[in-house]
Amino acid sequence: MDEVSVRSPATVSNVVCGFDCLGFALEEPFDEMTVRKINDREVRIINRDNYGLPTDPTKNVAGVALQALMDAAQIDHGFEVEITKHIKPGSGIGSSSASSCGAVVAANRLLGDRFSKLELVDFAMAGEMLASGTRHADNVAPSIYGGFTLVRSVDPLDIVEIDFPALFATVIHPQIEIKTAEARAILPKDVPLKDAVKNWSNLGALVAALSSGDYDLMARSMVDLIVEPARKSLIPKFDEVKNISLAAGAIGGGISGSGPSMFMLSQTPETAEAVKTVMHNVYSQTDIDFNIYVSRIHREGVRFV
Amino acid sequence: MDEVSVRSPATVSNVVCGFDCLGFALEEPFDEMTVRKINDREVRIINRDNYGLPTDPTKNVAGVALQALMDAAQIDHGFEVEITKHIKPGSGIGSSSASSCGAVVAANRLLGDRFSKLELVDFAMAGEMLASGTRHADNVAPSIYGGFTLVRSVDPLDIVEIDFPALFATVIHPQIEIKTAEARAILPKDVPLKDAVKNWSNLGALVAALSSGDYDLMARSMVDLIVEPARKSLIPKFDEVKNISLAAGAIGGGISGSGPSMFMLSQTPETAEAVKTVMHNVYSQTDIDFNIYVSRIHREGVRFV
Repeated sequence: MDEVSVRSPATVSNVVCGFDCLGFALEEPFDEMTVRKINDREVRIINRDNYGLPTDPTKNVAGVALQALMDAAQIDHGFEVEITKHIKPGSGIGSSSASSCGAVVAANRLLGDRFSKLELVDFAMAGEMLASGTRHADNVAPSIYGGFTLVRSVDPLDIVEIDFPALFATVIHPQIEIKTAEARAILPKDVPLKDAVKNWSNLGALVAALSSGDYDLMARSMVDLIVEPARKSLIPKFDEVKNISLAAGAIGGGISGSGPSMFMLSQTPETAEAVKTVMHNVYSQTDIDFNIYVSRIHREGVRFV
Repeated sequence: MDEVSVRSPATVSNVVCGFDCLGFALEEPFDEMTVRKINDREVRIINRDNYGLPTDPTKNVAGVALQALMDAAQIDHGFEVEITKHIKPGSGIGSSSASSCGAVVAANRLLGDRFSKLELVDFAMAGEMLASGTRHADNVAPSIYGGFTLVRSVDPLDIVEIDFPALFATVIHPQIEIKTAEARAILPKDVPLKDAVKNWSNLGALVAALSSGDYDLMARSMVDLIVEPARKSLIPKFDEVKNISLAAGAIGGGISGSGPSMFMLSQTPETAEAVKTVMHNVYSQTDIDFNIYVSRIHREGVRFV
């Protein structure tokens, strides 16, 4: 086997009260990627889309992730990776993570699945480091493991798979730019202990609700008193989208990643479509371009084609 | 039926990273309580122990909890409650909660189990308000529900039962007094967001570990960067007890309630007994009196005799 193709899906991180730890994998949108063995010990990047991402492997997230894998594997060949991105960079639904994870999962298959999922997350984090300046696993963990994941710790890396019932996401991506630095600067450095207690009580309840399939508890516990109040001002119509989505039957939701995308979870595909309709109505009244995706939460992350 | 007797067990709250929300019920120690219907619309308290607790029902936690239940039930009779406490007040293992909960569970049985567990928690919180000045459910929730409980919210009251595997606790109660006011004052008012994130990542992981019976993950996630560092100075030999207990095979543990009791969890009764031995060795070198209890985590809280 000299060539492997994958679909590498979008992911949602910072799931409401699960800031910096809880994320999940969508079924779509996804990037299409093909990785091939090449004789030279190097990484070659071929972009088949119009995003103009770097082809210098040291400046491309898939390139640095593959290099991390190659350093660990100590192999005498290299990889060529052909990327057709459909997940727009900067959308807040794990575009960089999709590139890094797709590359390392495909390359690992070419090496006979030599590395564990945890090791693949570690390699893919090199891509996140390049993209955002921090080694975080919020998106790469669900990308590699699928479903819901909780990053208990980055150093040492500790990833927990959280069981969950049928769930469907509606994600709206308003085509505005939020600079990562701005989204970070707007966060409080310190938080009142009483708010932190409420947040971890909600996260503990949300994990229990996901594990036991209790949709009502999920709805009650999807509350964020810390990050959402600080960041929602960066996203036009945030409150309106959230309120109208809840009225349309969504369980709960919030900012995806550090925005500008917003997500809402629903129990059925029908409700997720109804949420899409009301989101569409709200954003049609603005002059902002937007995409809306409806997708189930997928138990797999990167998938072989 | 005019009389009901119960065993009302000790409970552990503030379970490591679950400060102010996560607690569990022990099998022992427990208070023995008998509640009887009486014709007068009043509460009478009879103490059968030597703790000298108030017999004025407005100043006794069981009295005010029963009064809250009577106000809601609108009955034309009253209750007499006879209490033999074995859980020393101020021990940090839910002594006041045991009294309040035993009283309302027994009285509810005399009323044909008219009230739900959630309502009983609400009544029992009147006792906690009297004892500590705040309406908190950290101990009364596991007392009423048994097992592990997470108090997602006090207002509105929302209690989540967390599934868990076989677990055994070793609890040491050093006979020193920690004033609640002092234990509170020593807590930081604000915490760094990055520490709060670590705490909720650990709590999310701990809930997942309990639900799935993953003892290793339980061990890794029983970490408290916020409350334990602030409060442990109030408890002599805290670090020594913790470290030697972990070395003896305990999964993890920390301060029970706001102290002075400490608890450690183990996978088997044998390990819990080994932990008792090493705790005993540490405290025997001090001039502080102490009790050590070994108990499984009980799926029931207050039990009928």
